[in-house]
Amino acid sequence: MTYPNWLSQRSYLSGDRMALSFEEQQWTFSEINDLALVYAGKLTELGVKADSRVAILAKSNPESIFVMYGCLHLGCEMVMLNERLAKAELAYQIDDSEVDHILVADVLKGKLDSSNRILFSEIESVAPAEFEPQKQWRQDRTISIMYTSGTTGNPKGVRQTAENHFSSAVSSALNIGISPDDVWLCSVPLFHISGFSILMRSLIYGMGVRLYEKFDAERSAEEICSGKVTHMSMVGVMLERVLTNVEEASMQASPRFKAVLAGGGPIPVAYIKRAEDCGIPVLQTYGMTETSSQTTTLQSADAERKIGSSGKPLFLYQVKIDGTEKPGENGEILIHGPQVTPGYIGAFAERSVQEDGWLHTGDVGYLDDEGFLFVVDRRSDLIVSGGENIYPAEIEKVLLAHPAVREAGVCGAASDKWGEVPVAFVVLNKEAAADELLAYCREQIASYKVPKQLFFVEELPRNASNKLLRRELRTWL
Amino acid sequence: MTYPNWLSQRSYLSGDRMALSFEEQQWTFSEINDLALVYAGKLTELGVKADSRVAILAKSNPESIFVMYGCLHLGCEMVMLNERLAKAELAYQIDDSEVDHILVADVLKGKLDSSNRILFSEIESVAPAEFEPQKQWRQDRTISIMYTSGTTGNPKGVRQTAENHFSSAVSSALNIGISPDDVWLCSVPLFHISGFSILMRSLIYGMGVRLYEKFDAERSAEEICSGKVTHMSMVGVMLERVLTNVEEASMQASPRFKAVLAGGGPIPVAYIKRAEDCGIPVLQTYGMTETSSQTTTLQSADAERKIGSSGKPLFLYQVKIDGTEKPGENGEILIHGPQVTPGYIGAFAERSVQEDGWLHTGDVGYLDDEGFLFVVDRRSDLIVSGGENIYPAEIEKVLLAHPAVREAGVCGAASDKWGEVPVAFVVLNKEAAADELLAYCREQIASYKVPKQLFFVEELPRNASNKLLRRELRTWL
Repeated sequence: MTYPNWLSQRSYLSGDRMALSFEEQQWTFSEINDLALVYAGKLTELGVKADSRVAILAKSNPESIFVMYGCLHLGCEMVMLNERLAKAELAYQIDDSEVDHILVADVLKGKLDSSNRILFSEIESVAPAEFEPQKQWRQDRTISIMYTSGTTGNPKGVRQTAENHFSSAVSSALNIGISPDDVWLCSVPLFHISGFSILMRSLIYGMGVRLYEKFDAERSAEEICSGKVTHMSMVGVMLERVLTNVEEASMQASPRFKAVLAGGGPIPVAYIKRAEDCGIPVLQTYGMTETSSQTTTLQSADAERKIGSSGKPLFLYQVKIDGTEKPGENGEILIHGPQVTPGYIGAFAERSVQEDGWLHTGDVGYLDDEGFLFVVDRRSDLIVSGGENIYPAEIEKVLLAHPAVREAGVCGAASDKWGEVPVAFVVLNKEAAADELLAYCREQIASYKVPKQLFFVEELPRNASNKLLRRELRTWL
Repeated sequence: MTYPNWLSQRSYLSGDRMALSFEEQQWTFSEINDLALVYAGKLTELGVKADSRVAILAKSNPESIFVMYGCLHLGCEMVMLNERLAKAELAYQIDDSEVDHILVADVLKGKLDSSNRILFSEIESVAPAEFEPQKQWRQDRTISIMYTSGTTGNPKGVRQTAENHFSSAVSSALNIGISPDDVWLCSVPLFHISGFSILMRSLIYGMGVRLYEKFDAERSAEEICSGKVTHMSMVGVMLERVLTNVEEASMQASPRFKAVLAGGGPIPVAYIKRAEDCGIPVLQTYGMTETSSQTTTLQSADAERKIGSSGKPLFLYQVKIDGTEKPGENGEILIHGPQVTPGYIGAFAERSVQEDGWLHTGDVGYLDDEGFLFVVDRRSDLIVSGGENIYPAEIEKVLLAHPAVREAGVCGAASDKWGEVPVAFVVLNKEAAADELLAYCREQIASYKVPKQLFFVEELPRNASNKLLRRELRTWL
């Protein structure tokens, strides 16, 4: 099975429609497609091929999108690198994914030095080779690869195919509707599924993207109220700041504004009520890299009645609880649908992600008697900090590698600004200062993952089989 | 690949939303699903099974939909019979499709007498057996089978799978948008793809259907203007009558009304302009049973600039002209996409419908320099009469079976009321009266197919290889 080339088809069907706007500039689908063809030609000239796998390290700006769309036209697989990662983390992902090329925005070149690196300025300056785009794309073509950690602490490269992205976009449309004049404000990272899925929806729907390089609460509030945008993806902390701006300016969302898609954990009901007062419908979502974005969504109307719920699945998804059909009974959350990744690459390529067609999320939850999903425990005590997923095991692994550390346990602590921040508990086997250990962490992991506090303790809470009880750690705070 | 059971999923996700309204009654998705489960139980009790193939002969009313949705839950294949067909035509389709059961609305029982007939009243009166619906549907499951004629004059049973219907619904949504409060007025036959596809969209989108047993221009005009409905499917003659009603009452379409989907041949520009004045956007479409409804669509905005065009393909479709990539050059229209039928049943089961993944439509047309499709000649001089497709070969075959007829040629003549009507030219080999021949036709084919005029001629226009030139016949009128 195939799709028509999404870039060519959009240019053909709705070439005059706005595809991308950034600051004061904007581009139509026809212009975006022409640029993408030029970039595909340039990348071809630089040796990138249809079957290449390339890593991309970039900021959220139009140039990055042109490079990505050039890669889309070419047909190559894109490993989306998180620009906030530490050098060692980037090195791991590049090594694991065995990429042929690494495309790096010049401002980020300090992060990465490699013989197969191609700077964006080199792409800009080269003359494009002749290039003929593919007319059809295979459904099972891998478009993007994103690394996500898990219980092991080793990041796994998750493949997202054309079918995954298409099904995700369609499922979302069947839930919230679509209209040819929709514009989605994107200030979440493009290297995350939250941001990348907005680009995919743009091509599939023919929808405009209003791109910000960085989140800007004041401007977001203005554009929500002026009707310049119709949708916006956010995490809880972003929503709070946007609401504050709307409230302080005594504004109201434009009737054109349709929905905030809110990910990264439950949104406090107080926010939902404030959002209602501002005329902003908030859809809380539950999803992950392995499901190519949102899996379940809670409508604004149900938010108060179903506090803490992640809502119901999108049309093409099915959700069940492992081992039980009883409402209210906890178990591992299983997910089925065409948005679920076919699998990993690299070290985890052999690891199957599905059993009998169901993704085992590792998250624990239950369905209530109306079929609303409640996520009780995200996998391995996931910490969600400002929308970034932080896996305690990953930080513990780093701490344990320090010669002074015998045992380490990490958990999330509540934070007004970020929702949660990581905090570490350490058992020493020889003397060491907390600052020394934190500096050691800072060399190896992204700064948002470095514990905000580090406590020395005599022993860590463990169960009978000696498994660390991270939930217990939280009670120590 | 599978879908969640569309009926169960819709009931789960938007159970409280209006699914169907008919006269003064209405049903939610939850109620529709409960009824469908009861009907599935009743059909089970009457011996219908998941792997059964059933024919349905019914009017467009709620009861018919409950029976169809019961069959959907059961998983059986539905052969949709056209209630306007003559006995002999129905007999052919029932024989060719080898159905296990024939479900017949009581008012139509005179049309069909067969040992495996089950009347709707029998379904009503039986107590339902226990029934557990399938949780997942295979993508390649055949949902519906519709007979369509072709160059041969022998009707072929076209299979339409779950994937065909789903892709068609999604493609349409990506073109015109969808909103959770859409309501589609359906007064085109449910046994046609034009009507049946509205039911499929209803389940997939969670969209309300406003059902009419018969087309009613006055009420349609009222509901378009009151905002009770947002979409309506029509053919040209219906549009003209609705417009006349809107104009005579000096009304305007409600701002809630989004689009008329107009099939069955090009719409006169004069209608489009009148529709514009009434605030009614008209989307002209080109499609067929083999592509599960619309394939290309012409936006209102392009209607005047591209008179006679059928527009551009929907997102998942690709259209090309056989043997040429030059704009303006005629050739057979080829279509590719997941909405294209996998094939026929019965006598034509072995006939492949696709070559290298492309459907050969038999229609002739060209693409202009902007990629707009113009259909120059519908296959085998198809006559479109009041939205019904009439294949000349089928009528000729009937005439030729009469002992007095040596040669027969049928073509379409313009009609104010129906767009076109069939007209016959006959070469006799012994004396016969026109009335006698027409009466003979009336016994064997639906009345709308019976020639409205019959001329006796000395010979028919044929080309060098003796092929009948039906286009030439038109010039004789």
